[in-house]
Amino acid sequence: MTDLALAVDLGGTKVEAALVDSAGAVVPGSRARRPTGPGATPDLLQGALIQVVRTVLSGAGAGAGDGVVGVGIGSAGPIDHAAGTIAPVNMPKLHGMPLRDVVADAVARVGHREVPVCLGHDGGCLALAESWVGATRDARVSLAFVVSTGIGGGFLVDGRLFAGTTGNAGHLGQMHSDDGLSLERVASGPASVEWAQKQGWAGTTGEELAAAAASGHSVARAAIERSARAIGRALADIAALVDVELFAVGGGFSHVADDYVDLIGAALREAAALDYARAARIVRSGLGGDGPLIGAAALVLRRETAAV
Amino acid sequence: MTDLALAVDLGGTKVEAALVDSAGAVVPGSRARRPTGPGATPDLLQGALIQVVRTVLSGAGAGAGDGVVGVGIGSAGPIDHAAGTIAPVNMPKLHGMPLRDVVADAVARVGHREVPVCLGHDGGCLALAESWVGATRDARVSLAFVVSTGIGGGFLVDGRLFAGTTGNAGHLGQMHSDDGLSLERVASGPASVEWAQKQGWAGTTGEELAAAAASGHSVARAAIERSARAIGRALADIAALVDVELFAVGGGFSHVADDYVDLIGAALREAAALDYARAARIVRSGLGGDGPLIGAAALVLRRETAAV
Repeated sequence: MTDLALAVDLGGTKVEAALVDSAGAVVPGSRARRPTGPGATPDLLQGALIQVVRTVLSGAGAGAGDGVVGVGIGSAGPIDHAAGTIAPVNMPKLHGMPLRDVVADAVARVGHREVPVCLGHDGGCLALAESWVGATRDARVSLAFVVSTGIGGGFLVDGRLFAGTTGNAGHLGQMHSDDGLSLERVASGPASVEWAQKQGWAGTTGEELAAAAASGHSVARAAIERSARAIGRALADIAALVDVELFAVGGGFSHVADDYVDLIGAALREAAALDYARAARIVRSGLGGDGPLIGAAALVLRRETAAV
Repeated sequence: MTDLALAVDLGGTKVEAALVDSAGAVVPGSRARRPTGPGATPDLLQGALIQVVRTVLSGAGAGAGDGVVGVGIGSAGPIDHAAGTIAPVNMPKLHGMPLRDVVADAVARVGHREVPVCLGHDGGCLALAESWVGATRDARVSLAFVVSTGIGGGFLVDGRLFAGTTGNAGHLGQMHSDDGLSLERVASGPASVEWAQKQGWAGTTGEELAAAAASGHSVARAAIERSARAIGRALADIAALVDVELFAVGGGFSHVADDYVDLIGAALREAAALDYARAARIVRSGLGGDGPLIGAAALVLRRETAAV
């Protein structure tokens, strides 16, 4: 029997769990999810976690859970790695929640034997997944990140996660961008939609923005270019500061235009003052939407890569 | 006989060399320097290097050079660590110069036996020195930097230099600050003097700016506060992105006001959006002006800490 991880991904809209095998693939049919949201409370989340853990471990069939050698959790950040607690920006009622212990408790309630439980922030997990089965496998220093409702990522250095002092390295969305706003407030999907609306565009979603731009709507296109420009400028700063070889970008909003990644790259090169920073490359993520789950699994299945 | 390093520090105004012992101290009387400057050419620098290397190794007394087990070079960046070349921002004629080989040649000309020659950028060397005998010894993730004619530094992570892809991590001075200018162009010593002059202040140096502010000149004081604010905001971004535990600041301009470090810290805390970033501390450098030489020596005397 192959080693499996129970992977848990806690985000601002849902908590999801699945089994992931030692090749970095989600086990078909093993997935379960429950909604979260800005009003999520510790009690509601605990109930949701018990449900998804039970569904995943029992759905694996009698005895199949025996292959589970550990539990990896990727959570919306920030986290406190040492304490095992979370303080997600978009779910204030969960601040201070001891997520690692709560998940361990949920696993125990299902009657599973005790296994290691590891906590990382979702950006770091994404970076682990990208370096395992995605686009940054061969890079010495990389940053993988998503542009979605938020903007966040993680660093891989010489094949290992660089997690920082408290486990939160990679929160580029909280860097400052134009007008003193955070990069997330300027360049995320919702921020881009909001900016377009202020310019008179009538749509409401990133998907509509993509369609409008594709059909020639100049404001929609300008909103996309504005997002890419702000991100490219931030990457230029990151490339100067951290001497990054490769950036990989994923997340729903990264598909808003075919040339979105090229636009970011052009802005990066324009903003970078030094040759080594200008030489940093950017590619699309090599993962589908399973990146966070795969990376959470890497916390336990590839501990040698998870420095936290 | 204690192990010694021949340490070389190449900066925008001078090239300096000295012997450094295994306790991280510059050997008294072993120092030599020659001027450089924006117009420095490879030929002139090579001549200067031969002179300082000869002075240091021969001045050590007959046979004393035998204790030299390696040569460490800290250079104004950027560098190309793999190639052993430099491309210093402020000395354009030296771009592409194979500094590592030139120094090795200078050592050979003096008749010294062949020893390892290591090249790092001066910011990385400073960080190595700070973690060896300075202010960041106990920090897990730290950034040591100088505010002087330029602004630059280096990262130490778990007791090792984090050098990045090409050896240049830590170039915070090339991050963007207000009005699209680099942090260096906004907040360095010369930039602060220039800003004060534009507001009507009549002085010309950082020392005069310090004296004017101390005696109550409001424009001089405003220039200092402006510098600290820009640096504090940059550190807030760095703290969010890299999850830094401790910043250490040195360099001539960091002494421009007694409360300069406190001003930076206040700006950092005001600009940081997330708790873990707001918790990053900033202290004064624990080194005098010997930091770059001591750090260059660390490249060879403490190779286990120099990841490059």
